[in-house]
Amino acid sequence: MSEYVYGNTPTFLGAKWAVDKDERGADVVIYGVPWEGGVTWGDYTGVELGPKSMRIASARYSGYLPELDHIDVFESLSLADMGDVDIIPAEVENTMLRISSFSKDVWNKNVFPVALGGDHSITYPIVKGWSESNPGKKLGIIHLDAHYDNMNDFNGDLYARNTPFARLYEMDAVVNSSLVHAGIHGPRNKPESGKFARNAGAITRTVNEFKETNDLRALARDLYKQASKDVDAVYLSICSDVLDHAYNPGGPVDTNGLTSYELLTVIHELGKQGLCGMDFVEVYPQQDPTDFSSHLASTVILYVLAGHAERI
Amino acid sequence: MSEYVYGNTPTFLGAKWAVDKDERGADVVIYGVPWEGGVTWGDYTGVELGPKSMRIASARYSGYLPELDHIDVFESLSLADMGDVDIIPAEVENTMLRISSFSKDVWNKNVFPVALGGDHSITYPIVKGWSESNPGKKLGIIHLDAHYDNMNDFNGDLYARNTPFARLYEMDAVVNSSLVHAGIHGPRNKPESGKFARNAGAITRTVNEFKETNDLRALARDLYKQASKDVDAVYLSICSDVLDHAYNPGGPVDTNGLTSYELLTVIHELGKQGLCGMDFVEVYPQQDPTDFSSHLASTVILYVLAGHAERI
Amino acid sequence: MSEYVYGNTPTFLGAKWAVDKDERGADVVIYGVPWEGGVTWGDYTGVELGPKSMRIASARYSGYLPELDHIDVFESLSLADMGDVDIIPAEVENTMLRISSFSKDVWNKNVFPVALGGDHSITYPIVKGWSESNPGKKLGIIHLDAHYDNMNDFNGDLYARNTPFARLYEMDAVVNSSLVHAGIHGPRNKPESGKFARNAGAITRTVNEFKETNDLRALARDLYKQASKDVDAVYLSICSDVLDHAYNPGGPVDTNGLTSYELLTVIHELGKQGLCGMDFVEVYPQQDPTDFSSHLASTVILYVLAGHAERI
Amino acid sequence: MSEYVYGNTPTFLGAKWAVDKDERGADVVIYGVPWEGGVTWGDYTGVELGPKSMRIASARYSGYLPELDHIDVFESLSLADMGDVDIIPAEVENTMLRISSFSKDVWNKNVFPVALGGDHSITYPIVKGWSESNPGKKLGIIHLDAHYDNMNDFNGDLYARNTPFARLYEMDAVVNSSLVHAGIHGPRNKPESGKFARNAGAITRTVNEFKETNDLRALARDLYKQASKDVDAVYLSICSDVLDHAYNPGGPVDTNGLTSYELLTVIHELGKQGLCGMDFVEVYPQQDPTDFSSHLASTVILYVLAGHAERI
Amino acid sequence: MSEYVYGNTPTFLGAKWAVDKDERGADVVIYGVPWEGGVTWGDYTGVELGPKSMRIASARYSGYLPELDHIDVFESLSLADMGDVDIIPAEVENTMLRISSFSKDVWNKNVFPVALGGDHSITYPIVKGWSESNPGKKLGIIHLDAHYDNMNDFNGDLYARNTPFARLYEMDAVVNSSLVHAGIHGPRNKPESGKFARNAGAITRTVNEFKETNDLRALARDLYKQASKDVDAVYLSICSDVLDHAYNPGGPVDTNGLTSYELLTVIHELGKQGLCGMDFVEVYPQQDPTDFSSHLASTVILYVLAGHAERI
Amino acid sequence: MSEYVYGNTPTFLGAKWAVDKDERGADVVIYGVPWEGGVTWGDYTGVELGPKSMRIASARYSGYLPELDHIDVFESLSLADMGDVDIIPAEVENTMLRISSFSKDVWNKNVFPVALGGDHSITYPIVKGWSESNPGKKLGIIHLDAHYDNMNDFNGDLYARNTPFARLYEMDAVVNSSLVHAGIHGPRNKPESGKFARNAGAITRTVNEFKETNDLRALARDLYKQASKDVDAVYLSICSDVLDHAYNPGGPVDTNGLTSYELLTVIHELGKQGLCGMDFVEVYPQQDPTDFSSHLASTVILYVLAGHAERI
Repeated sequence: MSEYVYGNTPTFLGAKWAVDKDERGADVVIYGVPWEGGVTWGDYTGVELGPKSMRIASARYSGYLPELDHIDVFESLSLADMGDVDIIPAEVENTMLRISSFSKDVWNKNVFPVALGGDHSITYPIVKGWSESNPGKKLGIIHLDAHYDNMNDFNGDLYARNTPFARLYEMDAVVNSSLVHAGIHGPRNKPESGKFARNAGAITRTVNEFKETNDLRALARDLYKQASKDVDAVYLSICSDVLDHAYNPGGPVDTNGLTSYELLTVIHELGKQGLCGMDFVEVYPQQDPTDFSSHLASTVILYVLAGHAERI
Repeated sequence: MSEYVYGNTPTFLGAKWAVDKDERGADVVIYGVPWEGGVTWGDYTGVELGPKSMRIASARYSGYLPELDHIDVFESLSLADMGDVDIIPAEVENTMLRISSFSKDVWNKNVFPVALGGDHSITYPIVKGWSESNPGKKLGIIHLDAHYDNMNDFNGDLYARNTPFARLYEMDAVVNSSLVHAGIHGPRNKPESGKFARNAGAITRTVNEFKETNDLRALARDLYKQASKDVDAVYLSICSDVLDHAYNPGGPVDTNGLTSYELLTVIHELGKQGLCGMDFVEVYPQQDPTDFSSHLASTVILYVLAGHAERI
Repeated sequence: MSEYVYGNTPTFLGAKWAVDKDERGADVVIYGVPWEGGVTWGDYTGVELGPKSMRIASARYSGYLPELDHIDVFESLSLADMGDVDIIPAEVENTMLRISSFSKDVWNKNVFPVALGGDHSITYPIVKGWSESNPGKKLGIIHLDAHYDNMNDFNGDLYARNTPFARLYEMDAVVNSSLVHAGIHGPRNKPESGKFARNAGAITRTVNEFKETNDLRALARDLYKQASKDVDAVYLSICSDVLDHAYNPGGPVDTNGLTSYELLTVIHELGKQGLCGMDFVEVYPQQDPTDFSSHLASTVILYVLAGHAERI
Repeated sequence: MSEYVYGNTPTFLGAKWAVDKDERGADVVIYGVPWEGGVTWGDYTGVELGPKSMRIASARYSGYLPELDHIDVFESLSLADMGDVDIIPAEVENTMLRISSFSKDVWNKNVFPVALGGDHSITYPIVKGWSESNPGKKLGIIHLDAHYDNMNDFNGDLYARNTPFARLYEMDAVVNSSLVHAGIHGPRNKPESGKFARNAGAITRTVNEFKETNDLRALARDLYKQASKDVDAVYLSICSDVLDHAYNPGGPVDTNGLTSYELLTVIHELGKQGLCGMDFVEVYPQQDPTDFSSHLASTVILYVLAGHAERI
Repeated sequence: MSEYVYGNTPTFLGAKWAVDKDERGADVVIYGVPWEGGVTWGDYTGVELGPKSMRIASARYSGYLPELDHIDVFESLSLADMGDVDIIPAEVENTMLRISSFSKDVWNKNVFPVALGGDHSITYPIVKGWSESNPGKKLGIIHLDAHYDNMNDFNGDLYARNTPFARLYEMDAVVNSSLVHAGIHGPRNKPESGKFARNAGAITRTVNEFKETNDLRALARDLYKQASKDVDAVYLSICSDVLDHAYNPGGPVDTNGLTSYELLTVIHELGKQGLCGMDFVEVYPQQDPTDFSSHLASTVILYVLAGHAERI
Repeated sequence: MSEYVYGNTPTFLGAKWAVDKDERGADVVIYGVPWEGGVTWGDYTGVELGPKSMRIASARYSGYLPELDHIDVFESLSLADMGDVDIIPAEVENTMLRISSFSKDVWNKNVFPVALGGDHSITYPIVKGWSESNPGKKLGIIHLDAHYDNMNDFNGDLYARNTPFARLYEMDAVVNSSLVHAGIHGPRNKPESGKFARNAGAITRTVNEFKETNDLRALARDLYKQASKDVDAVYLSICSDVLDHAYNPGGPVDTNGLTSYELLTVIHELGKQGLCGMDFVEVYPQQDPTDFSSHLASTVILYVLAGHAERI
């Protein structure tokens, strides 16, 4: 067991302890963003516990995936866990700056970063960090989610969990025609969200494409093709609720989503195509008696890394 | 937010408040039937809370379904919520009369009624209300369920949750050869149930057809073809347990059922073929810590209405 | 209702009460192995309650499966429940001997035995019982599981839940090239497990084969073909976690597993091919508020028996 | 076991089944008021399930209380259960009329009525029923509760759970100087509540008197003395939250309340002094995993009846 | 940490591991009786998990009780844990014999035995073991419980959890006039129970004596005085439900019981008076999310041992 | 409703929003310390959620306490909520500095500060802040807790939840003979803890004094007398587990503690004697389904403030 990150919380997947920011030698850097901003629905809250809970669950796993040709991810990739961004619960804008600053530092290290949310608002400052680390460069994004998360604001708050893609549409570094909202479904979306995406030039690929294809890997390659057009790099942002709540009891209560197999197969293929980094957000451990969603995080991230490793 | 139906309970999906029975201008009428009759298995109880719980969960949703060609159901259809049938927990027959009387009034209004259960026994009086509102007319029924629910009685009770289809077999207005039990599966059925259905001339389409087809929409059209033969209208009755318990933790504990995608795809297609009304029954909120099944109800009903809207 | 096995616990599926070991006339014998050995991960414990919980849940079921051509398993097969092996929680080796002795007696009766676990370590003594009952005979095994369970030992314990297949590799009666690890997946496996299997000559068929085939029954027949080569009989051992945790909340928290339909279809086909017996292990009722996994057990076993019955 | 009242719900404490209103021969009549009106705090809801849950729990009990000189209440008193008032969830005023009408009929029978709530609003129509059954007569009330429940209205609703004593202050039949709010405590009260009580001439006896006395029975007699002055009868209304939440997990979350012993001792003594009837309200079974508060109801009511029996 | 007794279960309170029956040098012997016989009420079950759960919780504790004059029990007394009696769930009489045989062996060792239940039926064979180990000697018993547990049988079963004191009344070695049922209360007792006790010559001290005294230690001495008359030794049997369910969520749902302080003070004093052994029964861990009752067991037993230590 | 502190979290008890540190006009300042350091027992974790959960629950309350002579605390005292200390989960010493710096600023404001924990380690830096704000002054402390929390370190960590009083013993500003450990009880204390306290010159008053007194207010005054000797001010630190777990399901699982009445009465009296500030620590909301401990916090703090108000 590695040293603790804090309390009873080990590093993610037994990664090298790098809370002191000394991640030297690592190919992949893990960091947590224990942030919950505006609560957009009832008492659905507690997402700030995600990084802690995902790390604790990860102690159960190796890097070996027999079903992916017996790959052992840790033979190819070494991981370091840099701990959490130092967020301030009551200061939204300040926290956004701290996230973008932290992630810029990570992007500068030329490693593959994996951010553990936190709510979905964190994707905006993470990508902002990329743009600051890569001046003049362009980014495509594959956004796997049930929802667009592209509202302009939540009661005036520009950085709530349902707004990050509105901010990303506005960012110069992001090429909207290479921003692919994939897996979108369900009536928790608002009618204007689809229009916002269309007007911004972003692409929508609904869940039905995932359900109706006979070749999930081909679909993944097609998503990647769109996202990688006219850009320098492709980022992957996964909201847990792209999964059906049956597979994700610690995530938002959304039906008609992906199965774990569907998600994993697509993201493994995306990893093989080449990504610059990723986040996994929206895990609410308090709603999840067996911590299923927290356990899921290890497999989700290992599948992306397995694809990534096969490129090396 | 609309006015409350009662307590902390809003109208379903933000429908017009019509608890005073003034539903004028509505295309679709919602009403609840908070009825639990005979308890047929252990402590599996609390289904009378279904309408309350489904309404509370529905406050989270719009009418927009991006995955169905970005339809906004509420652009085509206006909804009114007429509150609940005034049931009397200790009086089975009296309550059955009240349900049929209430539903007859709704059928008379020439709208699309959606009944929220309550246990499955409510389907019989709802259909009886149809027959009284449509004298001389004939009805086909598509019954999506794990179970036949066609036992003659439960310890002498003719109106328990496992008996409604025995009553419907006996009703003149129902054409049994257009009564399709679809999705049937599992050993909670009794051997005699299959024989009862066969003897009555009803059709059985088991869950395996849903699992083995490559074209769920074609299957749906085939179900509709059978149900619409020699009748004036087709009614849809959905028991939550046609879904696998993985997707329906607030419903009965039945395995090997449909996924939410399978159910939704079929009922959207059924809606497109033309239905006269529907019910959704057997939601037990006390067993469901995240109210998944109650949330599901909104999507289930929106999918049928989306199909219905496309006909207009 | 049959007599109780103990406390408030009826016989499994209403089987004949044969706790006195008088199972005469039965085609199938059920017995429980309420054993929990070494706890290999955190507080994941309570598997000794499996037989009790599965029996209590089974009271809800008949033997009728409408989706399998309306078979009533109990028309072809009569069941007897011989109660539980008398295990001693603190004595691992002694308990292993008691399990093998009990199961040898059952094997001697020339019936189809169904063992309800208990943790997976019980498969080794059950198979040992077979070898003692069938001297000089050879056995193939189809092992449906997320994990290899073939570690040499757990902190020195040779009979923990993650070790039985290491013991079986060593057993003369077991033909390793007919030992098929099927459904294997996920990073809770250790990298050395795949190598152990390969070195022992055992076969691995990962979950992806189940996900990618268009014909689960053909896959099942292929598994059977491998397992039945050069042997006198084929045994089936199912760990609940071959199912995705979505379908198995009372089992270990493993994602990317089979759906219930996938598992049931495969094991029905295996039953049709011809099995000599089976076990179903790793149900932890304390983690499962609606006892879904315990209910599942009845359907799982009925599907195998349905296949078995069709051979008679 | 008596016949069911409905579903799986037996009569309270095995009382004679009198849902047909034929309670002849009974000394005590039980009836339920499954009413939840305006929800005054967050999601604290589900009180309409109280009568069902209290009846189901009551099946566990006899009428024997060894600690009260081995009294067997059922040797002195015979009980009948008249089922529930037929409430209409969406119609507040209509339901209040139904409750007062039902309770007037019961008062007319010259028995000791016990009403099972429901929220506290039911006390007003029950007392109104008394006044209609006893024209010209005067009533004192002992109100055991953490809270005054005497707000004028809840968002305009005159009959919410925090308003019944405002209505009772206004009723001619109630002598306010004989209305004793006892056990009052805690900051969920509003400052104006104390003033309302004072202005109405009602008496306040806070929880501290119960905690500081050495003689709970003397305190009870003193409460009775105040309540019985200048009146023809004394009524007892108990809100579950007069108990500390430690003893009442199915009631509102209020601390610093009575222990069960304190409550039981006081109400036994009140029963001995002479009461005309009682209610027990505010049990929310959904919050109470072991149904402790529902079980409590049997003991609470038996203690009052034990006191009542000793007078006969 | 001591070695495990089984699975993830350490010895009780870090006692010397003596599962091999080599308890040499110990003053106190702990053993478990993981027995659940006839289930007398609904689904209240799982008491066989008591010894495991109490041992796991005990790992949190030392032997130091600052409030008892800073005693460290382990300075005076050394403990050994002999594991569990080897019970057979389906064989009542055989198990009773095994318990009496095991406990006879322990009594023969001239140590202070502490038995962890299991349901209350285990007290009879434990005392039988004493009588066999002490031929011709007489025993008094202090029985702390809400209930008499003295029914003749439960549906013919002479050894169910509500019958042990009927069996003890019949035993020659037990002097009934020195058998004190203490703490008795509540309507889960049956009227005949009080009569059975009276007819057998046993003593009843109800919970009200505990509640009304100003001197719990004097009460304890008085209980001891009665129990120690005309006997050679005094045994203590504690059912968890002598505590109010508020203090005992893992025990039966009984109200109006003792507080933990009341119980602990009395049993510390009893320990000081001189006991020959004790049991603590009726802990149902599945009902107890924070394992409060299992944690309680450590304190309960330490309080008796503290009293016992002060005598040495 | 005041503005949110963050997410869905209002200010405590509707205090003035002063997250911008502008608390002008306030008599009392509330702040949170969402800190969890070293986890000292198993999975007992989540205390960092305390301030959020206590604030959310507090929205239910006024400042009115009828049982304390109808005091309305808010008539005398105005509250401001300054939000939370900006802690860094992975940096223990840095966080300690931030807490002492924040609290020093608050002490400088000459208001009555109330800190909401967080684990008990926060008391040390809070008191350190006092000493820095009051150079040369001396402090007495009343420490209400089941445990001494005075271990030298936890695996080398000097600032874990079981160590703060070791640090306070060492602090010049704290007069150890005026440091009163009150309510101490139970075997989760270690034998050396009592010796550490004695050697440091601190005072121990065990829970038995609270249980055995007839005059809790006199006991409180006596505690105060000891704590106020030779010092300039007296601070109050309350660990939730001084309460019995029956009254505190969101706190550590400790039995034999105070009732809420006992705690509240003592702290009200302490408030009347004169305190300079307080903290309330060790609330773990994840263990507490009805948030009882979080609700409790409002009453606990209002009782101290009521005493404080009576001095003005």
